[in-house]
Amino acid sequence: MPSYTAPIKDMQFVLHDVLNVTASSTPGYDELEADFTSAILEEAGKLTSEVLAPLNAVGDQEGCRLENGVVYTPKGFKDAFAKVKEGGWTGLDMPEQYGGQNMPYILGTAVGEMFSASNQAFTMYQGLTHGAASAILAHGSDAQKDTYLPNMVSCEWTGTMNLTEPHCGTDLGLMRTKAAPQEDGSYKITGQKIFISSGEHDMADNIIHLVLAKIEGGPEGIKGVSLFIVPKFMVKEDGSLGERNAVSVGSIEEKMGIHGNSTCVMNYDGAVGYLLGDEHKGMRAMFTMMNEARVGVGMQGLAQADVAYQNALAYAKDRLQGRAVTGTEHPDKPADPLIVHPDIRRSLMEQKSFVEGARAFILWGASLIDAAHRADDKDADGLVSLMTPVIKGFLTDIGYDMTVKAQQVYGGHGYIEEWGMSQFTRDARIAMIYEGANGVQALDLVGRKLAQDGGKHVMAFFDMVKTFIKENAGQDAEFDASFMEPLKAASKDLQSAGMYFMQNGMKNPNNALSGSNDFMHMFGHVCLGLMWAKMGLAAKKALKDGTGDASFYETKLATGRFYMARQLPATSLHLKRIETGADTVMALDAANF
Amino acid sequence: MPSYTAPIKDMQFVLHDVLNVTASSTPGYDELEADFTSAILEEAGKLTSEVLAPLNAVGDQEGCRLENGVVYTPKGFKDAFAKVKEGGWTGLDMPEQYGGQNMPYILGTAVGEMFSASNQAFTMYQGLTHGAASAILAHGSDAQKDTYLPNMVSCEWTGTMNLTEPHCGTDLGLMRTKAAPQEDGSYKITGQKIFISSGEHDMADNIIHLVLAKIEGGPEGIKGVSLFIVPKFMVKEDGSLGERNAVSVGSIEEKMGIHGNSTCVMNYDGAVGYLLGDEHKGMRAMFTMMNEARVGVGMQGLAQADVAYQNALAYAKDRLQGRAVTGTEHPDKPADPLIVHPDIRRSLMEQKSFVEGARAFILWGASLIDAAHRADDKDADGLVSLMTPVIKGFLTDIGYDMTVKAQQVYGGHGYIEEWGMSQFTRDARIAMIYEGANGVQALDLVGRKLAQDGGKHVMAFFDMVKTFIKENAGQDAEFDASFMEPLKAASKDLQSAGMYFMQNGMKNPNNALSGSNDFMHMFGHVCLGLMWAKMGLAAKKALKDGTGDASFYETKLATGRFYMARQLPATSLHLKRIETGADTVMALDAANF
Repeated sequence: MPSYTAPIKDMQFVLHDVLNVTASSTPGYDELEADFTSAILEEAGKLTSEVLAPLNAVGDQEGCRLENGVVYTPKGFKDAFAKVKEGGWTGLDMPEQYGGQNMPYILGTAVGEMFSASNQAFTMYQGLTHGAASAILAHGSDAQKDTYLPNMVSCEWTGTMNLTEPHCGTDLGLMRTKAAPQEDGSYKITGQKIFISSGEHDMADNIIHLVLAKIEGGPEGIKGVSLFIVPKFMVKEDGSLGERNAVSVGSIEEKMGIHGNSTCVMNYDGAVGYLLGDEHKGMRAMFTMMNEARVGVGMQGLAQADVAYQNALAYAKDRLQGRAVTGTEHPDKPADPLIVHPDIRRSLMEQKSFVEGARAFILWGASLIDAAHRADDKDADGLVSLMTPVIKGFLTDIGYDMTVKAQQVYGGHGYIEEWGMSQFTRDARIAMIYEGANGVQALDLVGRKLAQDGGKHVMAFFDMVKTFIKENAGQDAEFDASFMEPLKAASKDLQSAGMYFMQNGMKNPNNALSGSNDFMHMFGHVCLGLMWAKMGLAAKKALKDGTGDASFYETKLATGRFYMARQLPATSLHLKRIETGADTVMALDAANF
Repeated sequence: MPSYTAPIKDMQFVLHDVLNVTASSTPGYDELEADFTSAILEEAGKLTSEVLAPLNAVGDQEGCRLENGVVYTPKGFKDAFAKVKEGGWTGLDMPEQYGGQNMPYILGTAVGEMFSASNQAFTMYQGLTHGAASAILAHGSDAQKDTYLPNMVSCEWTGTMNLTEPHCGTDLGLMRTKAAPQEDGSYKITGQKIFISSGEHDMADNIIHLVLAKIEGGPEGIKGVSLFIVPKFMVKEDGSLGERNAVSVGSIEEKMGIHGNSTCVMNYDGAVGYLLGDEHKGMRAMFTMMNEARVGVGMQGLAQADVAYQNALAYAKDRLQGRAVTGTEHPDKPADPLIVHPDIRRSLMEQKSFVEGARAFILWGASLIDAAHRADDKDADGLVSLMTPVIKGFLTDIGYDMTVKAQQVYGGHGYIEEWGMSQFTRDARIAMIYEGANGVQALDLVGRKLAQDGGKHVMAFFDMVKTFIKENAGQDAEFDASFMEPLKAASKDLQSAGMYFMQNGMKNPNNALSGSNDFMHMFGHVCLGLMWAKMGLAAKKALKDGTGDASFYETKLATGRFYMARQLPATSLHLKRIETGADTVMALDAANF
């Protein structure tokens, strides 16, 4: 049975040594003293490793069960959910006005990683609630906020997001769900939605569905889509629950993973809905939450990779098989542990350097979201908007690869469900798909974000990297060679790719879009390279200052050197591929495949 | 529900246009006329697409069931197995003396790909039988052959291979299963084996287990391992079945995939066993079948990638979502099909170019095995022995990646079991693990095969590529630029990596082994590059000759250009990683991870 240990020390290192959060001017960051964040992370670590992690396999094996319109969650989920509610975890970064604690999103992100790593399927019940609450917070009327938010922030009620229909996922303009205006200002919602995570379950008194639908007579396509609040039970004026709304679960899907979460087909049969935000502006309302939601999914890629890595590492230290090629290391034992073998090391170092780099990347991204939301920092908003598809697409692609590598360390046992490694792989797979499949992320990055505001944000990104190198290089030859030079080279590759797109994408946009996946990946590598350079500097400083655990910082430097030497150079291959343009990609007629 | 179409045209192209099998001097190849192979492939194609493929999802959903020591296979498996027996498919390349058809292994490999692609779990029942029969054929006494082979070749009895124990997989020297010599020359086998594919089931009258065990008092470790025949039911002198042997199934494993195959814990409680081959030479006996078995698993990587690709392609042509960026292609439809989008194309081209390149690689490998076995060609034997870990490791690693990519084309539907794409991914995962995990393949390649016979075989490989380029370049500038130059560059990268190992592996073997996975992958790319250059030449020739379907050959050339331009350059990244040596890989103490 796998276990999970919250990476508190590592998170503290990123928050304080690397990002230096208390020195930030973002409102609320001054409160993030090391002792304070440590206390919160410890508490979350306890809950996730002791309560949620042990339920992870249970959720996978039992799954959810639909009986007479009621979905039953796996054994133990209800009690655990009560504990999550008790701890007020959903409201961590929600306004105090609605019962939240108003802490920065960055702290919610660190805690969220623990939740996700310990039990992804379980965490989605509150994760979707958080997302739906954020949408009401951003676009609801005061009355709507007062009606729904207190119970959602406390997770007494949960939330869902209803976008997909059987014939449309990415292309929501094809949507068929209708909203018929009623005389009292409400709407009757009719249609079928699929893939609705946490769509129905037995852990909350009410479920607040946010549903995209087209108001009859509105514009065609995507411009006629509006967002509605559709409660499972009507909420009376006094806040008590009234009659059941005309929304029901049609079936629950059998999935590759995240079995503990109920993925529902939801049928709306003239259900009462209330417009959230403006008519026909449903997509815009969804998009304002997109950065957070996508950063959240990127975090899941990292989270599954981390818990899988933790267990692979333990197995590699424990499992005796073969002897070190450089000479027996444990003559007292019948064989040496797996970790002596270079190829096992290589795999573990790939996992470790990804997980730690990705964690810094996510927390940096969260700090930009905080700066954008709390300090109205437009530059931060532009930068995180640019990087959001990278965080989502790159971290979930590579996160999955790393989870598969962790599973591989177990050999045959990795394929047997009992050992739990298969579940990590199966659960990690969804993050590449939902919240915009990764191909859509790459398209968003290259087709939209690069040129946004006249290319201002990508220029700012390059300037930032350049300035960082300029300010920090030239002081230590070894560090320059190990960290700064590789970062410089990778960043140059990325710029060359951007240049290629500018010069060739005009002629034919396929020249850019054929390289979109490569660009997303090289961008991700440059960001992780930047993170490792920053972590390296922070570790060097700490070693020089003589503060804390020297071996922790030495390990950081060694892990960073591995990433810079062996992983970051992937940018050169991506550039090569990009520079071949669309010719070979688009050569065939569809009929000739 | 996914479907499967046997790639007969493509196999015929490789057999006849590329490998030109009838011109080979390998005994039996003269019979492989195009009409003849076509007839066999058509027949196998019919069986696999019409009988086995429809049972694939059934096997996944139902799995195997253990009740009172009996394992029940999924509904329909028994009938399908009867049809496989009827067709004599297991004996295709077995000697006529035992009821086989004595056809070359290359034909068995082509047919095997279809079996594997249509239903991997089902195919393992006969695949393991074939493997066990090959072992008896190679190492059995005449009496043993006469006793077991006729019924195994016909698949009336099936076979298993028993290597792994709970505490030892790769390191079989740790084995605990004991063989106690009896006065009649037989042995009593006692111990527990795990991960025994097809270990127990209801589709055959008898099961012939091949079991590795240590004869009491023999040498320590791997040198004391012997191989035994342990029948489920004793076989009487007259060939009829006698009493039940003391071998039983302890449990069946819950696995990530291949649910239709019973993966058993087998308990041997003083079961009667007969020595197969020499005392203490069990590992050698296993190794003689290793090339075939590993090539067979490499083929599975290709096979799952192919069936997944076929379905992803169909979905990409069918599913309407979004509009082509270069302008609407289907104004009559509410949206364009997925296949218009460059990133979907990129993914499909990656899948297609891998599958077709891998198929040529496998069939070429099989032709070398035939040359080794049928013509005692030592060079062919050395070459295929060198390439075996590449075929196994590279094709299953990339085959899995490609299966995941195919699943990704389906978006959310790819994650739902009903659509079948998840099963392909879950089933493909095992091929990276069994028959020697891919890290072990890389170790075998770099730690053993490179230096075998004084490095003769790897030198021969490089010479072969060089000669091929020399003989075929300089005739067509476009072809040289698209095919020959990239092949040359990739081959040069591979040579540089080999050189690095020679120069640095002596000092410290970790310098070589830290790059073993990269070397295996770059070797695979060079082999696929060579295959694409050969296929490109064959296609050019056919176009020039004006024979056959011009668009088929044009498509081959376009697919080859894609591989050479965008996939083959991966060798440069692998080389870069290799040349960083062991320093960053081995820097950390195990305790500091």
